[in-house]
Amino acid sequence: MGIKVGIIGATGYAGVELVRLLLNHPQAELAAVGSVSFEGKPISEIYPNLAGIFEAVLTSDEQVIEKSEVIFASLPHGLSEKYAASCAEQGKVFIDLGADFRLWAEEDYKQWYGLEYHDLTLHQNAVYALPELYREQIKGKTILGNPGCYPTSIGLGLYPALKSGLLDTKSIIIDAKSGVTGAGRGLSQTTHYPDCNEAFSPYKIADHRHTPEIEQTLGDIAGERVTVTFVPHLLPVNRGIVSTIYGTLKKDITLDEVFDLYKSTYKEEQFVRICPKGTAANLKNVRLSNYCDISLHLDERTNRLIVVSAIDNMGKGAAGQAIQNMNIVCGLSENTGLNSVPPCF
Amino acid sequence: MGIKVGIIGATGYAGVELVRLLLNHPQAELAAVGSVSFEGKPISEIYPNLAGIFEAVLTSDEQVIEKSEVIFASLPHGLSEKYAASCAEQGKVFIDLGADFRLWAEEDYKQWYGLEYHDLTLHQNAVYALPELYREQIKGKTILGNPGCYPTSIGLGLYPALKSGLLDTKSIIIDAKSGVTGAGRGLSQTTHYPDCNEAFSPYKIADHRHTPEIEQTLGDIAGERVTVTFVPHLLPVNRGIVSTIYGTLKKDITLDEVFDLYKSTYKEEQFVRICPKGTAANLKNVRLSNYCDISLHLDERTNRLIVVSAIDNMGKGAAGQAIQNMNIVCGLSENTGLNSVPPCF
Amino acid sequence: MGIKVGIIGATGYAGVELVRLLLNHPQAELAAVGSVSFEGKPISEIYPNLAGIFEAVLTSDEQVIEKSEVIFASLPHGLSEKYAASCAEQGKVFIDLGADFRLWAEEDYKQWYGLEYHDLTLHQNAVYALPELYREQIKGKTILGNPGCYPTSIGLGLYPALKSGLLDTKSIIIDAKSGVTGAGRGLSQTTHYPDCNEAFSPYKIADHRHTPEIEQTLGDIAGERVTVTFVPHLLPVNRGIVSTIYGTLKKDITLDEVFDLYKSTYKEEQFVRICPKGTAANLKNVRLSNYCDISLHLDERTNRLIVVSAIDNMGKGAAGQAIQNMNIVCGLSENTGLNSVPPCF
Amino acid sequence: MGIKVGIIGATGYAGVELVRLLLNHPQAELAAVGSVSFEGKPISEIYPNLAGIFEAVLTSDEQVIEKSEVIFASLPHGLSEKYAASCAEQGKVFIDLGADFRLWAEEDYKQWYGLEYHDLTLHQNAVYALPELYREQIKGKTILGNPGCYPTSIGLGLYPALKSGLLDTKSIIIDAKSGVTGAGRGLSQTTHYPDCNEAFSPYKIADHRHTPEIEQTLGDIAGERVTVTFVPHLLPVNRGIVSTIYGTLKKDITLDEVFDLYKSTYKEEQFVRICPKGTAANLKNVRLSNYCDISLHLDERTNRLIVVSAIDNMGKGAAGQAIQNMNIVCGLSENTGLNSVPPCF
Repeated sequence: MGIKVGIIGATGYAGVELVRLLLNHPQAELAAVGSVSFEGKPISEIYPNLAGIFEAVLTSDEQVIEKSEVIFASLPHGLSEKYAASCAEQGKVFIDLGADFRLWAEEDYKQWYGLEYHDLTLHQNAVYALPELYREQIKGKTILGNPGCYPTSIGLGLYPALKSGLLDTKSIIIDAKSGVTGAGRGLSQTTHYPDCNEAFSPYKIADHRHTPEIEQTLGDIAGERVTVTFVPHLLPVNRGIVSTIYGTLKKDITLDEVFDLYKSTYKEEQFVRICPKGTAANLKNVRLSNYCDISLHLDERTNRLIVVSAIDNMGKGAAGQAIQNMNIVCGLSENTGLNSVPPCF
Repeated sequence: MGIKVGIIGATGYAGVELVRLLLNHPQAELAAVGSVSFEGKPISEIYPNLAGIFEAVLTSDEQVIEKSEVIFASLPHGLSEKYAASCAEQGKVFIDLGADFRLWAEEDYKQWYGLEYHDLTLHQNAVYALPELYREQIKGKTILGNPGCYPTSIGLGLYPALKSGLLDTKSIIIDAKSGVTGAGRGLSQTTHYPDCNEAFSPYKIADHRHTPEIEQTLGDIAGERVTVTFVPHLLPVNRGIVSTIYGTLKKDITLDEVFDLYKSTYKEEQFVRICPKGTAANLKNVRLSNYCDISLHLDERTNRLIVVSAIDNMGKGAAGQAIQNMNIVCGLSENTGLNSVPPCF
Repeated sequence: MGIKVGIIGATGYAGVELVRLLLNHPQAELAAVGSVSFEGKPISEIYPNLAGIFEAVLTSDEQVIEKSEVIFASLPHGLSEKYAASCAEQGKVFIDLGADFRLWAEEDYKQWYGLEYHDLTLHQNAVYALPELYREQIKGKTILGNPGCYPTSIGLGLYPALKSGLLDTKSIIIDAKSGVTGAGRGLSQTTHYPDCNEAFSPYKIADHRHTPEIEQTLGDIAGERVTVTFVPHLLPVNRGIVSTIYGTLKKDITLDEVFDLYKSTYKEEQFVRICPKGTAANLKNVRLSNYCDISLHLDERTNRLIVVSAIDNMGKGAAGQAIQNMNIVCGLSENTGLNSVPPCF
Repeated sequence: MGIKVGIIGATGYAGVELVRLLLNHPQAELAAVGSVSFEGKPISEIYPNLAGIFEAVLTSDEQVIEKSEVIFASLPHGLSEKYAASCAEQGKVFIDLGADFRLWAEEDYKQWYGLEYHDLTLHQNAVYALPELYREQIKGKTILGNPGCYPTSIGLGLYPALKSGLLDTKSIIIDAKSGVTGAGRGLSQTTHYPDCNEAFSPYKIADHRHTPEIEQTLGDIAGERVTVTFVPHLLPVNRGIVSTIYGTLKKDITLDEVFDLYKSTYKEEQFVRICPKGTAANLKNVRLSNYCDISLHLDERTNRLIVVSAIDNMGKGAAGQAIQNMNIVCGLSENTGLNSVPPCF
């Protein structure tokens, strides 16, 4: 028997992507799926792709916790603390795909989400679970804040450069583009097909809630406060994020040396791929996978490094990374259940 | 060590989908990938989604046969016979994803493809490998004609109805719609993005080469000659086929009875799913899988049965089914390597 | 000064397409635009494409009627009768883009829409305004039922064949595909981008409300009751309908003769184009226009005529045709304001 | 009779968009359309959307010049000079949509295009024809270099800010995204539907040929050399460009003051629209039009101005602007033939 896992918020997009991946996870047993909106219905009624494969009836969140050893939660912010507390009491692992356990500083949470932390101990015991950066800290933890999609692509994209002090930390501009699943399953005019098909626009310009999370990670890498300009755009595709990141070089460095730096930094990381010189990262190549593809470019005319980082917002940006984290805390090989090959098309 | 498998024509769309699926197949070892156009290059240079996962150098077709026990070929028609002969001589299994071993009657091949069979024995030893209909005949064979995408969706969609004599066999009209990968990797004006995005049109109206293959299967089921009207359309999506099939009922039957018939016919078939009453098959639910979803509808006003059959043209319509066939001839469980859950989006 | 025109329901998709076309109409003056949901706001706030061009404040429906000589209404069924009555009293022209004045037989309306006609005189005075078929009847009328999108494409597609008695009227099957704007501006799970992008499925199979309207027109052409099988599908494009229509030939006829018949029937019709032999109608070529493109095909093997009819569901299928009708009743040249060339892409 | 206009390269995407717009231009008569590839064929055979509207036979380039007073050329770079010379000799207006008359400095042309200017007088007599910036210089000229699509969106987006000295000219980063028609009608793997659908990636990173043209315009506005980082991306839509432009503010300024500056700068410009505060420019709103929509944003945390500029790459970015230029040199009202309302969807 595998590890009993459960999902709170299983009918949201990240939730149902967790379902898909966990059903293929050789060491996990999907014990319960919860939904407030659809409790009592089989999940395959909401998602017919699961027909004949997984037809579990959606239960209450409480039942999910009761039946599971590892609980994934994919909820709007402000709702996870109580479940984390409940899991902590019962000695269960709680992996939060929402925003409630990502920010170390409560004032950031207050400023950007308008809410407070109610139980500081929970947050002190939690870990910001970006494995490539914080693997050792994740081990042994039972409350995990799974990183946001944009912050994952950006943290991985800048880690080698910032750690090496290559960049002027005041110069960083991130122009990011996300597929529509990033906006979730909830209906909105913005995500109505005729409104976003054959359309393209930025949103929440320099005002997106992922900003403090991005700066927390970059600041921690750089060892100094980092303030960035971050502009996300809505891309008319279902899945995938491309972050195009600009930073001014503080040091003389050749493109080959940048490649060496990135390759050596990530040489042990299965899920980070450095694209061959002369090619650009494309979200197409990482769809339905846990990969982060990074391409590296120099603008010698302006002395800027350009890093392009592509992930699947639902994979490495959400459900895939959450499973990677589960594997770490459960002592499994980190890629267990995450080896499916991304499709070409 | 697993079964050594190789792919001739590995850089075509069906070929590279085979690569993806075989890399996840627990009993197969992908021993060689062949390409005339890209021989000598690593396949991951052509398909960067494979970077870090599978970087084998593309070889000649001859080397593929030499290194493999089971050979998949995905080639333009007219090219497979010599490879089939070579495999037959060496006692290897040859699974042809092209058209050369699908038609029992050479005159059909001549009429629709303009070519002849050069070695009749090969064709007599071959089997038309649609597992749900011809499973027993497939076992023990070493030359397999893997069905076309449209014929698969249609054969499965009509099998229960035709076998039961429900339909007037002269009344069958098939209006099919395929994603653009069905047209292959080769460039054409029709598949140039600005030409097929925000576009929709039929093509090869009542003149598509899959027609004799469709009629061969339907005729075999019905036990009489069946002539159909078949009109395919190009759909602006990457993957998937929906066949909407119309037939006049010869017998009084209720929709519930039709459901019973289809469910009982396919009750042992993992890869055929009958959609719940009141819902319609959607290619979305079978993408990246080996499923065929079938929905059933009666037009009582005109006494017609309407069957909607959805597959992934690259999955059950090509590479997935080819692996299902490999599993059968190799004595493996039929779903080995084919259990990945189709994504919701 | 031009004709004062107004739109009730101006923020729906057909409504705002009327705005676009009427702003380019040389003889019309857009006097008022009404909206229940957005009354008091400038329409350019809802539709920023109109910024700087047309920033009229949305008013009540009553004000639209008061300020206009010709009133277009694009409303859910059941709401138009009272506005028609009001216009009739005041001697104004009322062009209804909804379903309330399309069906001659009240029992059809009852059966398919579940409502009754409250004022039979209004309906007796109304005309089903498909210009190519009913031009003479439209002239002089002041209550116009503008045809539905599917019925327009189908009526025009079958008119020459049915009028000539070419087809077995019991054999007609219509497989239609519509872009997502056909589902309107209202939000639904079905039209949520990640749900309908890379998806394809039929809906309301043999149960769509346009069925009686289609049969009314075809029956009137044929001079006998016609019952059809009609299956619409949702197509992942913004605009356009393709109807693929199948009918069994009652007479011996060559494809050339079919072409002659269609060309002679439509030789005076600017908005109907017969595609060259060997090509197929594509919705791409009629987008943003009032054209209906028709391609003709014979399946000699099964003795069926296949007609492919493509329109822009928002153009000839709604707003364009409504303006064509306005031109007729106002004594203008029928193509006034409808001459913009459809874009290639 | 209108002005006789002709198009060299009429079957390319910019060429056929010119056809569409010129057919609706009340003062122009489309006298000849040229094509090397399709000479002798009616243009409606290549572009069936033109059937019944414009079926002129494609002629040689020489005939286009002979029959026309104003000649538009849409050709690969290096081919326009000889036609410009020929037009100059005959006193005809030559509007080049290619790159040959855009760069003032021959060394830029040499460096980025690898070619030389053969007749310097032609280039000295030519004007870089971005009307909002160079209207007075355009008047009276007969050789016009119509700006590139990216440079148009960027020049208009930065003009008010740079002219006012708001920005540190060393800080400018442009992250641009273009629809696939920007890559032209020619086939390529990159623009093969399954390759670019559900995909997104930058290309020619800090190496695109529009860079010197962008810097020429920005430098001219700023009155000093400007070097920018410019990264274009391929967007899976047919039409439209969004340029997201980042610049560090040199002066203290409020967002309201930025709005005032832009609005006052462009108050006489019909084709530049400043989006309301709090909204973002979206290519959806300018499709099929000659508009440039600009939205303005401050990142107060990093003291950067963010300008989002959206155009239709085929409209204001090519054919629309070329007609605007023709109107200027022919003394017509600048918006003649350019007043069609952009569609909502």
